[in-house]
Amino acid sequence: MRIKVINPNTTLSMTDKIYQSARLIASPGTEIVAVSPQMGPVSIETFHDEVFAAAGVIDEVRKGEAEGFDGYVIACFGDPGLAAAREVAKGPVVGIAEAAMHMATLIGHTFSIISLIDRMEPMMAHLVQAYGMEHKCRSIRMTALEVLQLEEEGSDARQIVVRECRKAIEEDRADSVLLGCAGMSDLMAHVTAEIGAPAIDGVSAAVKLVESAVSLGLGTSKRHGYAYPTRKTYTGVFSGYSIP
Amino acid sequence: MRIKVINPNTTLSMTDKIYQSARLIASPGTEIVAVSPQMGPVSIETFHDEVFAAAGVIDEVRKGEAEGFDGYVIACFGDPGLAAAREVAKGPVVGIAEAAMHMATLIGHTFSIISLIDRMEPMMAHLVQAYGMEHKCRSIRMTALEVLQLEEEGSDARQIVVRECRKAIEEDRADSVLLGCAGMSDLMAHVTAEIGAPAIDGVSAAVKLVESAVSLGLGTSKRHGYAYPTRKTYTGVFSGYSIP
Amino acid sequence: MRIKVINPNTTLSMTDKIYQSARLIASPGTEIVAVSPQMGPVSIETFHDEVFAAAGVIDEVRKGEAEGFDGYVIACFGDPGLAAAREVAKGPVVGIAEAAMHMATLIGHTFSIISLIDRMEPMMAHLVQAYGMEHKCRSIRMTALEVLQLEEEGSDARQIVVRECRKAIEEDRADSVLLGCAGMSDLMAHVTAEIGAPAIDGVSAAVKLVESAVSLGLGTSKRHGYAYPTRKTYTGVFSGYSIP
Amino acid sequence: MRIKVINPNTTLSMTDKIYQSARLIASPGTEIVAVSPQMGPVSIETFHDEVFAAAGVIDEVRKGEAEGFDGYVIACFGDPGLAAAREVAKGPVVGIAEAAMHMATLIGHTFSIISLIDRMEPMMAHLVQAYGMEHKCRSIRMTALEVLQLEEEGSDARQIVVRECRKAIEEDRADSVLLGCAGMSDLMAHVTAEIGAPAIDGVSAAVKLVESAVSLGLGTSKRHGYAYPTRKTYTGVFSGYSIP
Amino acid sequence: MRIKVINPNTTLSMTDKIYQSARLIASPGTEIVAVSPQMGPVSIETFHDEVFAAAGVIDEVRKGEAEGFDGYVIACFGDPGLAAAREVAKGPVVGIAEAAMHMATLIGHTFSIISLIDRMEPMMAHLVQAYGMEHKCRSIRMTALEVLQLEEEGSDARQIVVRECRKAIEEDRADSVLLGCAGMSDLMAHVTAEIGAPAIDGVSAAVKLVESAVSLGLGTSKRHGYAYPTRKTYTGVFSGYSIP
Amino acid sequence: MRIKVINPNTTLSMTDKIYQSARLIASPGTEIVAVSPQMGPVSIETFHDEVFAAAGVIDEVRKGEAEGFDGYVIACFGDPGLAAAREVAKGPVVGIAEAAMHMATLIGHTFSIISLIDRMEPMMAHLVQAYGMEHKCRSIRMTALEVLQLEEEGSDARQIVVRECRKAIEEDRADSVLLGCAGMSDLMAHVTAEIGAPAIDGVSAAVKLVESAVSLGLGTSKRHGYAYPTRKTYTGVFSGYSIP
Repeated sequence: MRIKVINPNTTLSMTDKIYQSARLIASPGTEIVAVSPQMGPVSIETFHDEVFAAAGVIDEVRKGEAEGFDGYVIACFGDPGLAAAREVAKGPVVGIAEAAMHMATLIGHTFSIISLIDRMEPMMAHLVQAYGMEHKCRSIRMTALEVLQLEEEGSDARQIVVRECRKAIEEDRADSVLLGCAGMSDLMAHVTAEIGAPAIDGVSAAVKLVESAVSLGLGTSKRHGYAYPTRKTYTGVFSGYSIP
Repeated sequence: MRIKVINPNTTLSMTDKIYQSARLIASPGTEIVAVSPQMGPVSIETFHDEVFAAAGVIDEVRKGEAEGFDGYVIACFGDPGLAAAREVAKGPVVGIAEAAMHMATLIGHTFSIISLIDRMEPMMAHLVQAYGMEHKCRSIRMTALEVLQLEEEGSDARQIVVRECRKAIEEDRADSVLLGCAGMSDLMAHVTAEIGAPAIDGVSAAVKLVESAVSLGLGTSKRHGYAYPTRKTYTGVFSGYSIP
Repeated sequence: MRIKVINPNTTLSMTDKIYQSARLIASPGTEIVAVSPQMGPVSIETFHDEVFAAAGVIDEVRKGEAEGFDGYVIACFGDPGLAAAREVAKGPVVGIAEAAMHMATLIGHTFSIISLIDRMEPMMAHLVQAYGMEHKCRSIRMTALEVLQLEEEGSDARQIVVRECRKAIEEDRADSVLLGCAGMSDLMAHVTAEIGAPAIDGVSAAVKLVESAVSLGLGTSKRHGYAYPTRKTYTGVFSGYSIP
Repeated sequence: MRIKVINPNTTLSMTDKIYQSARLIASPGTEIVAVSPQMGPVSIETFHDEVFAAAGVIDEVRKGEAEGFDGYVIACFGDPGLAAAREVAKGPVVGIAEAAMHMATLIGHTFSIISLIDRMEPMMAHLVQAYGMEHKCRSIRMTALEVLQLEEEGSDARQIVVRECRKAIEEDRADSVLLGCAGMSDLMAHVTAEIGAPAIDGVSAAVKLVESAVSLGLGTSKRHGYAYPTRKTYTGVFSGYSIP
Repeated sequence: MRIKVINPNTTLSMTDKIYQSARLIASPGTEIVAVSPQMGPVSIETFHDEVFAAAGVIDEVRKGEAEGFDGYVIACFGDPGLAAAREVAKGPVVGIAEAAMHMATLIGHTFSIISLIDRMEPMMAHLVQAYGMEHKCRSIRMTALEVLQLEEEGSDARQIVVRECRKAIEEDRADSVLLGCAGMSDLMAHVTAEIGAPAIDGVSAAVKLVESAVSLGLGTSKRHGYAYPTRKTYTGVFSGYSIP
Repeated sequence: MRIKVINPNTTLSMTDKIYQSARLIASPGTEIVAVSPQMGPVSIETFHDEVFAAAGVIDEVRKGEAEGFDGYVIACFGDPGLAAAREVAKGPVVGIAEAAMHMATLIGHTFSIISLIDRMEPMMAHLVQAYGMEHKCRSIRMTALEVLQLEEEGSDARQIVVRECRKAIEEDRADSVLLGCAGMSDLMAHVTAEIGAPAIDGVSAAVKLVESAVSLGLGTSKRHGYAYPTRKTYTGVFSGYSIP
């Protein structure tokens, strides 16, 4: 099985970290390929970033279909471009936010999300609502960290994340915590050990869910909502994205 | 007051129709400029189309800010790129789906949406949920029409739309109907007359809501969720969209 | 266009303040008439007050129909008598609570309501639910102020309102604030300037929404829920309210 | 124990029918007094009717407090004036719609409401939402009957009600039916026998719930939402409703 | 009328306390029989406890049907076995959590639940959701008390309960409090007096609701969801629970 | 990895079918053990059946902990005993209804459930609500089949299931269907082929989700809601279930 893990931003150190997390968790027969789009933002912290990141995600899924991938992971906690990617893909496509949330409901009553700068909170609140997880989500704790601080050697980002995760368990009474950024994917074991409760990395969770779906013979349903995109002409710099 | 009405697809006959509807309803002191992005799909019928249309919408809002517009209308019933456009804009940005829904709640208990091909139904159901309108929406009736059929001379699209609108009032007991595509914006008066109940065109409604917000001195809040995008480098063909 | 703005209580200094706010925001061609009912409570702070205020609102709308008004604003943040007023009116009827909430959703992700004495909180929570705004409303902050304190020269009501609005933005992370009483309608610009985020006055918002609806040719739908009241005999002191 | 059952309309034949139902179900030690207000509509079929009926309900509860009643039933399936009546009353106040819904949840998974003319459906849908019963309510079936047809000798109203109740059980798969008008209170046994499933009359249910609350020593909570109305001057024809 | 009050745990001192509360509130013609199952946990504080307690409840209801009881109360604030008990019973079956919640909605806008050890909070949150009470429930306050501490002479459990109830009224702005354990049923009058707001004991409330339903001629609906269990063979130690 | 798949009923032909489905989908390193409890109903079609089946599930999970299993599947579409099983287990426990629903949301917008006799519909509606899937579930189609008919050679059960699944896709516009009984687990491939859309077997899905959780190092969270059951004495025939 070949899974393409798409880091929707263009920071390759993060892509590499995501690759390591994905490779580590993948089953023996699974080949992981991790990529960043060839265009787009270096990190995703605004809706503006998400729009352009989504185009990059689609680009990579379209190429992935030609390359014969069996499934895809969208490795950004905002799940950018997820619905469109599903239209394009024959196999399953899983976002890391949804992966973490679904997995959390299997091992606890409730979860909290720990994430980064304050302005991203509405994005996550929207996903929680759209995925039907309002009864499960105890809190969304923002840390004021920027995405790229997670990439800096020697920053205290790790400690800050652990501290907020602990508060989620102890003050908000969550049963588990979700690491709300792909850049935290290397912290799953560390945070779990520190807080004495499950910390869930969406990248790892999504790889297992894609593997699961493929094993089950489940691709994206092509009836109704995620049918293949219909024939369509695109113009200008997007003409390459026409649907023939 | 200057309002930029953005048709997120690149079909200029539709842009022109939208322009006529917007100009007709605009207040005397309002200048309407209607544009299509310089790149993107000729019509928006899939999530794939929406992703690229959203990039085009952002492009036009960014240019619009330099051009000094006071507000924006996104003239596609999926409201593509709305959140990102709000980050970019100083003034208000209104999507035609939200405009039609908000206006409908002021004149009736319930509404129905009449729209086009079946696969677009989940997009609209998602907007209804996200906007908190589930208690108000009696039905979403799809017609199997494609967007560009609305542009064809002599098609029976108009009759089909009227027929479904009538069913929404009589069978689904809706108090009003929403014309679920910018390409229907010229049908508001005709449908209203035919069905004996209000038919609401989102383009017209959105123009009035932008005018209202601007008159009230209300621009997009720059606290929290829609603050201006933070400094960010974009790479590749999107490098022009970096935030300096 | 002629709009009747109904202050549902009988305190004329407040009616005058409401009139000033409405007149200031009205378009050049709009005539504003502001009235208080000829009977009812001097302020509206309980459900008991609302019942009698609603009767007064109906009385004014019925007279308004005879007087040829194009639309109505109900200028109390509890929207008393709104559904009944819509049955009576041919044109649109807009309450100031709904107007403020709808407008807030166009310029921010979330809002908070700042209002008066504690016991009014359930009224507002009910409106938030009924209007489908639960996902948008960050908090309802009560101030312990009584309605008529807003009318007193030299009271510190203004400072208290500003302080709570600031907390809503900074502590509750709302993107905007709604001024939860028609008696605050003169504070919109002041509060906005003080807190650096939009403060929305429902009176002003409602005037623009009525103007918008009328411009769009939209009156209250007479199909189903808000059809004209059916023929009915009323007895006793209400015999004048029979529907002939 | 003395319970005042208020028929909010002024049709005394209906008040008498309500009285019979209430008296029949009341416990031995309970005295039932059934009244109509001295003013208001002869039947309640619109929001307009509800506003004036609510004033009449308040009037009767205020008098009832002076007369020493222990509790109140509001015998109209729209529960008009309920919140205000609770502010005024020391003891419990129960509406017949809420009584029927609460009782239905104790004896079945789901219920349907059978009621009268089509335009009343939004009133009932609103109550279902406000009472948190959306998951329990299978359907609201309107019959096109007017309230006063239930009072006419020899009308086929009874057959029509039975027919719709049967459809609710068999087609909508409801476990029970609610008789959605106080004027149907004499049909409870008949409908139950005809359809082989519980039919619930709100008048009877409300009497038992008021008795229950009084027995439990539970009056309306005077903390927060239903505290006694605060001192207030009312003007004009409502001056008699001032709160001293 | 004969009502069987089932304490689902096997601690007879609690059964006796429950019996006293039930007998005290029962109407003159009502005979109360209070029992504990012949097997099961000595207190119910986990989902594990609930599963086995539910079997005991069913056992008692099955015996109760043979003994000719008219209705049942399940006297544990988790309402264990409620749905299954309704299938078995001809008459009404009422849980004390649902009884307290329904009664609370008749006398206040909102309520809070005061209960015991922290881990039981999700059970109660689930009931609040399942019963449609989310808009009514201000808070669920856990006290760290174990069930059997309520049975200990001289413990400070009573003071702790009163303190949390007071906080619910004053800090959470609840209109009433629900005593979230059958073991608190003797505290209703004491807490009410201490906090100046209604405290509701579910045992007492449930007795009145069963009496009410029986008086109304309402048994459990045997259409659809709670029809009698179908013929079924049970094996092993549960063979005695086969449905013949 | 060792997974214990528990068929909560005692029909061994069904246990065997479930075993085949589980074994077929399990990863190479996974050992599947499938069992039925030693006591309980031969099939689960009522809430009464569920109560006793839940006890059997707990019994098997308790034994499973002693036997060193890494995770558990509860192979009944009502997920009986799930919460209690999670308290007992160190590893993950997954019900087949939740497994099917979560998987369905990854490959389509919406799903329908196809299940058996009509009276089971409320059980499933309750799960859909509790799992936050109301926006995803298009319909719950009952077939009037009994559980054990699925075990009969030569019955037309298979055709009936296919027919209803097809209607779910074509009439209810679901993107996928869930096979709403463990006894249908052998139909996944057949139904998928027949209807041209994904059919999801919960047994298979649950096996993959347990494997995924175990691979991720995720056991049941022991903080808050699913902490190990506290020390407790059980009496009577359940004394063996005491928590030491």
